[in-house]
Amino acid sequence: MTLTIENAVLEGYADLISIRIRDGRIEAIGPGLEGPEHAPRLDAAGMTVIPGLVNAHTHAAMTLLRGAGDDLPLMTWLNERIWPAEARLSEEDVYWGTRLACVEMIRSGTVAFQDGYWHVHGMARAVRESGLRVALGLAMVDAQGGEQGDACKKAAREFMAQRDPHEDRIQPILFPHAIYSVSPENLRWCARFADDHGLNVHIHLSETPWEVNDCLNRHGMRPAFYLDTLGLLHQRSILAHGVFLDDDELDLIALRGATLVTNPTSNLKLAVGGIFPHERAAARGIPVGLGSDGAASNNSLDLFAEMKTFALIQKHARGDPTAMPAPLALDIAMGRKAPILGQTGIIAPGHPADLLLIRTHECGMVPPLNLASNLVYAATGAVVDTTIVAGRVLMHHRFVEGEGEIRREVTARALALTRLHPS
Amino acid sequence: MTLTIENAVLEGYADLISIRIRDGRIEAIGPGLEGPEHAPRLDAAGMTVIPGLVNAHTHAAMTLLRGAGDDLPLMTWLNERIWPAEARLSEEDVYWGTRLACVEMIRSGTVAFQDGYWHVHGMARAVRESGLRVALGLAMVDAQGGEQGDACKKAAREFMAQRDPHEDRIQPILFPHAIYSVSPENLRWCARFADDHGLNVHIHLSETPWEVNDCLNRHGMRPAFYLDTLGLLHQRSILAHGVFLDDDELDLIALRGATLVTNPTSNLKLAVGGIFPHERAAARGIPVGLGSDGAASNNSLDLFAEMKTFALIQKHARGDPTAMPAPLALDIAMGRKAPILGQTGIIAPGHPADLLLIRTHECGMVPPLNLASNLVYAATGAVVDTTIVAGRVLMHHRFVEGEGEIRREVTARALALTRLHPS
Repeated sequence: MTLTIENAVLEGYADLISIRIRDGRIEAIGPGLEGPEHAPRLDAAGMTVIPGLVNAHTHAAMTLLRGAGDDLPLMTWLNERIWPAEARLSEEDVYWGTRLACVEMIRSGTVAFQDGYWHVHGMARAVRESGLRVALGLAMVDAQGGEQGDACKKAAREFMAQRDPHEDRIQPILFPHAIYSVSPENLRWCARFADDHGLNVHIHLSETPWEVNDCLNRHGMRPAFYLDTLGLLHQRSILAHGVFLDDDELDLIALRGATLVTNPTSNLKLAVGGIFPHERAAARGIPVGLGSDGAASNNSLDLFAEMKTFALIQKHARGDPTAMPAPLALDIAMGRKAPILGQTGIIAPGHPADLLLIRTHECGMVPPLNLASNLVYAATGAVVDTTIVAGRVLMHHRFVEGEGEIRREVTARALALTRLHPS
Repeated sequence: MTLTIENAVLEGYADLISIRIRDGRIEAIGPGLEGPEHAPRLDAAGMTVIPGLVNAHTHAAMTLLRGAGDDLPLMTWLNERIWPAEARLSEEDVYWGTRLACVEMIRSGTVAFQDGYWHVHGMARAVRESGLRVALGLAMVDAQGGEQGDACKKAAREFMAQRDPHEDRIQPILFPHAIYSVSPENLRWCARFADDHGLNVHIHLSETPWEVNDCLNRHGMRPAFYLDTLGLLHQRSILAHGVFLDDDELDLIALRGATLVTNPTSNLKLAVGGIFPHERAAARGIPVGLGSDGAASNNSLDLFAEMKTFALIQKHARGDPTAMPAPLALDIAMGRKAPILGQTGIIAPGHPADLLLIRTHECGMVPPLNLASNLVYAATGAVVDTTIVAGRVLMHHRFVEGEGEIRREVTARALALTRLHPS
């Protein structure tokens, strides 16, 4: 299967170029390149090609609960809005919610994401049909007791037993929710299960001061150290949030080779009280990714908006307008600074054809003085004209197949789910 | 001239409604309303009508310098990028830069704005042709000496002498730049000129700690008190930024009846080191508006994005997720909390027909659980389908007349202006 993109602008080339794609990967790049005769071609005239973005932390199906409870204290939001609705979620709900999230990500230039949620089969089916890449989190939480944990273990074992090892766009990972919502026994089970299957482990860590204090009270140490005692801090560990990590914890995380994922909008919206310590993490060489978190706590999955918020809040927190410059924010949003998420963000022969065509002529992108600056500070996901993943065109001229049906299904299901708890 | 909007959703009505517009104002609202036979009608099926947004502080023509210098310290940015380019700006440049800003604002749902910049005739011509409303700032700055101040006074006098008093979409205001860039003599001249002509006065105030310290050193008092000694603090005063106002200054501002305008993205991007004290301002009943600042320091004019950043940073600064809830952010962005900017944000008979049709079916706006939350936290300006100002349709189905030519002109002029100082 081949596709040739023609007449595109690509940074580093003076002339318009073509990109020839074969079997999901870039085969050749250059001006005047010809594709095979009669093979599909895509005219990118007036557009700039850039690598797709990587949403390193989300809960895709939570599009179902977008707007179901905003401007509330965290525990009110969870107890009164999110958890009652989640308790009623079916696998079919999760399928449709994830489908909507995939459409939203495709429309805003995300080509791959890391997800953790319930009903993993529904999630996998939705992503498979969407054409995106995902690191799919097999959830573990046992806050409601041992049976809940056992059900999570059963689902994880089943998914691993039944999965098609050739399905390379869907990578299973283990997703224990957090150190306060999973027992030490089940966290140790996660460590062993992940080791046995060579899985990455994704966990929320150090999101709120409450979590840090609770860990100190219960375990006599801070969250990263506690995680380490459980065998969950290593090169396959992905730690979401990490807002309140102190220097000793960052030293340990760097030593173990784990990855951090920041979710600036979610942290600000929930007013957790701190800002992700990017400068201190980067100084230690810790890999960093960028995530939107779920649509119930953002409430958008647009990583262009997330890049801007990330850059703004880093500048603010450090009192330095030169902090988190646009090219660095772009690198992070493209996953270039977090190789555990896959070698993304590179347009070169041999690399996956995960590409965006950007409408650099949109009025918010004019004048074209600085592409990185325009992408981070001026753009939203609406500047993406075409989204290509593994050589397959998932959106062209902002049209995504099946979008209307997905929007109608999610609307109907969300209204039913939240009927008892209208906001 | 009449226009009837049909089949729209409007909050407060169970059925689809029509809005009949005559001579720029709303004449009637209701289900099953008929427009005059053969008069223009606009089908809003599937869309929700909301009031247009008001950008209370910008420098529209600075779209010419979008991306010309980002991630730089303030003085490097001004000295090396902005001021050298601004020194070369012609009235024709300002005309085209303002045209582009108007297109960008129309596309993102802004119906009126307050502007301060050079070449006021170019600004006025651009806004007149765009169809938007503007409070047009007659600039005053004399940092380069008395001749500069004299030229500003001459331009202000000329504009007032030549203006058409029947042109109700363009309201002149006086725009002394700041207390550190205009001499006390010329600030007093501004106070008198504004009094003589009944003009509002718009000024940057308390944007940085440097400005506060400079004022204390030079005048022995904080900025709001200094402004008061010059006769510039009253019910026609509009103070942009106001980040570092202390309680005594806020008391004085409340007593004098002046208005504050916050520009959260600009403040964060320049890392000024503080957050607008909305809670303390609101507690005193001070009117508050929301602005994008210029495209060189944001770098977007999308007030939907600005609302979200405003809500997020207020929650963060106050450590309270219930702070700046979505409906309040919307009220402020619609100008409902700053009546000096005009009685905006009301859809009712007799009020100006400044309306937006929102694509509530866009995938980022689904599910429709909470309109205010979706508008503030999930939307960008791209959800605006149709923008109507004074009953005139400025954008329909995202098409704005003349946009292509404007983008090409601005691109050519911006490249010429910044050629000596490429970023």
